[in-house]
Amino acid sequence: MLRTHTCGELRAEDINTEVTLAGWVQRVRNKGGLIWVDLRDRYGVTQLILEEGSTDEALLKKAASLGREFVIQVEGTVIERTSKNDKIPTGDIEIKATSLEVLNRAKVPPFIIEDETDGGEELRMKYRYLDLRRNVVRNKLQLRHRMMQETRKFMDGQDFIEVETPVLIKSTPEGARDFVVPSRVNPGEFYALPQSPQTFKQLLMVSGFDRYFQIVKCFRDEDLRADRQPEFTQIDCEMSFVEQEDVLNTFEGLVRHLFTQVKGVELGEVERMTFADAMKYYGNDKPDLRFDMKFVELNDVAQNKGFGVFDSAELVLGICAKGAGEYTRKQLDELTNWVKRPQIGAKGLIYVKCNADGSFKSSVDKFFNQDDLKAWAEKCGAEAGDLILVLSGDKNTARKQMSELRLKMGEDLGLRDREVFRPLWVMDFPLLEWDEETARFHAMHHPFTSPKAEDIPLLETDPGAVRANAYDLVINGVEIGGGSIRIHDRATQQLMFKHLGFTDEEAQKQFGFLMEAFEYGAPPHGGIAFGFDRLCAIFGGSDSIRDYIAFPKNNSGRDVMIDSPSSIAEDQLKELHIKLESKGI
Amino acid sequence: MLRTHTCGELRAEDINTEVTLAGWVQRVRNKGGLIWVDLRDRYGVTQLILEEGSTDEALLKKAASLGREFVIQVEGTVIERTSKNDKIPTGDIEIKATSLEVLNRAKVPPFIIEDETDGGEELRMKYRYLDLRRNVVRNKLQLRHRMMQETRKFMDGQDFIEVETPVLIKSTPEGARDFVVPSRVNPGEFYALPQSPQTFKQLLMVSGFDRYFQIVKCFRDEDLRADRQPEFTQIDCEMSFVEQEDVLNTFEGLVRHLFTQVKGVELGEVERMTFADAMKYYGNDKPDLRFDMKFVELNDVAQNKGFGVFDSAELVLGICAKGAGEYTRKQLDELTNWVKRPQIGAKGLIYVKCNADGSFKSSVDKFFNQDDLKAWAEKCGAEAGDLILVLSGDKNTARKQMSELRLKMGEDLGLRDREVFRPLWVMDFPLLEWDEETARFHAMHHPFTSPKAEDIPLLETDPGAVRANAYDLVINGVEIGGGSIRIHDRATQQLMFKHLGFTDEEAQKQFGFLMEAFEYGAPPHGGIAFGFDRLCAIFGGSDSIRDYIAFPKNNSGRDVMIDSPSSIAEDQLKELHIKLESKGI
Repeated sequence: MLRTHTCGELRAEDINTEVTLAGWVQRVRNKGGLIWVDLRDRYGVTQLILEEGSTDEALLKKAASLGREFVIQVEGTVIERTSKNDKIPTGDIEIKATSLEVLNRAKVPPFIIEDETDGGEELRMKYRYLDLRRNVVRNKLQLRHRMMQETRKFMDGQDFIEVETPVLIKSTPEGARDFVVPSRVNPGEFYALPQSPQTFKQLLMVSGFDRYFQIVKCFRDEDLRADRQPEFTQIDCEMSFVEQEDVLNTFEGLVRHLFTQVKGVELGEVERMTFADAMKYYGNDKPDLRFDMKFVELNDVAQNKGFGVFDSAELVLGICAKGAGEYTRKQLDELTNWVKRPQIGAKGLIYVKCNADGSFKSSVDKFFNQDDLKAWAEKCGAEAGDLILVLSGDKNTARKQMSELRLKMGEDLGLRDREVFRPLWVMDFPLLEWDEETARFHAMHHPFTSPKAEDIPLLETDPGAVRANAYDLVINGVEIGGGSIRIHDRATQQLMFKHLGFTDEEAQKQFGFLMEAFEYGAPPHGGIAFGFDRLCAIFGGSDSIRDYIAFPKNNSGRDVMIDSPSSIAEDQLKELHIKLESKGI
Repeated sequence: MLRTHTCGELRAEDINTEVTLAGWVQRVRNKGGLIWVDLRDRYGVTQLILEEGSTDEALLKKAASLGREFVIQVEGTVIERTSKNDKIPTGDIEIKATSLEVLNRAKVPPFIIEDETDGGEELRMKYRYLDLRRNVVRNKLQLRHRMMQETRKFMDGQDFIEVETPVLIKSTPEGARDFVVPSRVNPGEFYALPQSPQTFKQLLMVSGFDRYFQIVKCFRDEDLRADRQPEFTQIDCEMSFVEQEDVLNTFEGLVRHLFTQVKGVELGEVERMTFADAMKYYGNDKPDLRFDMKFVELNDVAQNKGFGVFDSAELVLGICAKGAGEYTRKQLDELTNWVKRPQIGAKGLIYVKCNADGSFKSSVDKFFNQDDLKAWAEKCGAEAGDLILVLSGDKNTARKQMSELRLKMGEDLGLRDREVFRPLWVMDFPLLEWDEETARFHAMHHPFTSPKAEDIPLLETDPGAVRANAYDLVINGVEIGGGSIRIHDRATQQLMFKHLGFTDEEAQKQFGFLMEAFEYGAPPHGGIAFGFDRLCAIFGGSDSIRDYIAFPKNNSGRDVMIDSPSSIAEDQLKELHIKLESKGI
């Protein structure tokens, strides 16, 4: 090794030891005949010291000429520091350098490599390898590493077998967003990259693997939102001979293990809520339970009082913002403007302030007297000092808008602490959802999710009312995992494809292998998949997954560091039996 | 859970316990008013028993009608078996069934699901999910799981960080065998799937990650030989501030750990050999050291005795097959025919038998007297009862042919025991190798491998003689890993690209990001990658990697189970901005 110790290792008890260190020059200070060099590596920072008089001239000169990010190797003796630094673990010592070799020089980096940097996002993406040199960024990937190892330790301990499923699979018409790979050996044919290993993990259950997991890359060629990546990582899991309750218990265990081992946090009870209740009380299927502010339906106390906006609304919804009764006119105007932005799209916002003296002040005092407002306050559980916010409209829209407003109020009131974790199972999702565009039902989860046995008759009469044996794990308003008990018999699977608008031929062509497998003794089974990037971001207290991916792509799916995607040679295209659509390369 | 216990769990101490089991019907026997059902799952087999008189009529009837591979759930009581079966861990008990539910029926499988099956390879590939149900096949994937977990445990313990590098990367002209992925968002442009994460792991070293590893899928679109797969798995590793010796020691540690933990085998010393010696003494760069039979160059004792074949040969090579002196005429003729097959291509084979009485009998007695042959025997270390086999010709050909013959003799003499493991580092590979077809030098390992410092001057004068800081780990004649100390400065990397025939522009376009990274403080670094599929096969005692892959592709790169690759829809092609070359779909 080019070193005897790392830069994070030496302590007071190592004083007088001869050591060799190697690393990056973080900083050089030169003052009163003394030169200090902060030497950095992944493990920490160690201070080197060179002193005029006691250090060789040539060595002093070499040290003085070091630039930031130079890679050096230093020999020297560990000595006690005169002014100790208790902020770093090596702060009691320094190295009196006796020799120094520059292993590699460095140009001046395009941005400062410190926890706080002056580099913009684009520059940091282009020089991602330098951004990764910053402790704050590398720590996120070390967290990810820890999460991976602990996930595997837990799963292995529960007898799950990790099986690698193929990356080169088959394109399906359902998967309009498949990435495809032309085959050289099979002209005119294509592989697809998996959006998930769903069918393979089900086949492993048919094979009797009983418990499968995999931490696996998946791919989706969709229009990228700020926080989506074309390639992402899942913790993918499946179990046989289980019912929903078994899956929930097992993976509560996993999440609990990760919180204890990686964050030292004891996760409290994992609450459970039906999809219907989540929509009713929080306006979305992944409520943030770090704060209350449940929706209250005010129709019975707010309608028929002559306020046309409410009277014509399908739903009048209130939330109680505890302690926000002191909001100023300005703050309330800002809130109103906020809900009226196109992204939210509300027509307006009604408020009721609950005054200290028990009276109420609202933006609709013209239509509602104090008794009316008192009835609202009672329904909302509002007390003196609280603020009631009311939106109305058709049911789905009002819920959606109120969900956004609720989250904003939670944020504004400091109720969304990144170090508080509130996990929740959302259950009983609808099996199907109607798609206006294609005018047919789509699988809300995927076509392999089983309907609740008691709802199967509804498939013929009221498909939208059929509930699925499906569940999502939500933490702090973020969906981190979702799964279901699967269909495991051919007849039900065929029925499902029929309701999704597949002809028998299409179903057979695409999923014949799975339906045939179900005829050879398929056990009841179910599973779950966690979005691993997002799980890491939650653990790291971040909203964005991008920092938790070593080499992420930008919003156009480009890797700006390596400049990919890129054109390829004409003869390579030829070998693959394809041509470009329009203009040449 | 649909069971209280697995089928491998119950023992004598569980007698009288009420249990629920679930699994597959392995076999039903019906004799003298008794019905036995062998119930199987991943964990084992448990016998169920039903008895006329004491068991309910309907239940008996149901049990009698069970078919092979039916999935059932059974309730019953654990009782002591009258005739114990000491071949299985559950052999002391059986379950007196009190109820039985068929969870799923099964058609008669297309082949027998037992350790010995009647299914041909093609049929088993098509129904891979049934083949995986056989214990012997599933055990191989359980071994693979164990290998993965132990690899991670070791690497994590050595402070290596697992980092996932991207799957959608950039195509390089060097990588003529890249799989490519058309980009929908970036018309006319393509991603490539990685043949290895080489450049990314080097960038991670530039980032100061210090120690990186990953168990990662890689892809190569090459013409498939029997034992290659288009997607394969590597244990990919890289370390900073190391010299070759550090890498060798670290990964000897990994391999030792795996042998101890997974196979309970203490691996002996890992021998070391230069590439030059491997070629000289074994005729290839991955010698099988489970047996000796080193090549002996016989030119000085075999030439100039009037035997034209030898006299005109560049090299006369002998090996000594211990104890094979009793080979019959027929066996020797067979050996001669074997080396004359087109795959080997020798013109003939010379033998010398060392008789018990100290005399010799050879196929070239006409040209060589007993003293001549004695000289051969002495050089070869042959004693009474041994057989000397001699091939000659130009150096490379003779070595290649003798290498094949040596392996065959090792096999025939039972010297290649699958439970004996002889690891070897082969070192000092040539940096470059001449390619007749393209009439230029290619990187033997890859363009990022560093030349030995003392050989750099030779780059200009005798490029073929430059040795690389490269090493392969070989076990039992199989290359399981290879790596090198890398180039870490721009100047050397540029020089290397120049010698590989890149123009400056080409080098910049393809690898500009890496060379630029080297200018910002790149540490000395090196690493290794192991072929994980092959490593598993070695541990499992198998020659073929295919069984160690859950869903392998066939020799045409097809997955015959899911029928992939396959055609895709015209409008999907359109979205991807490509057309098929000739005929439509």
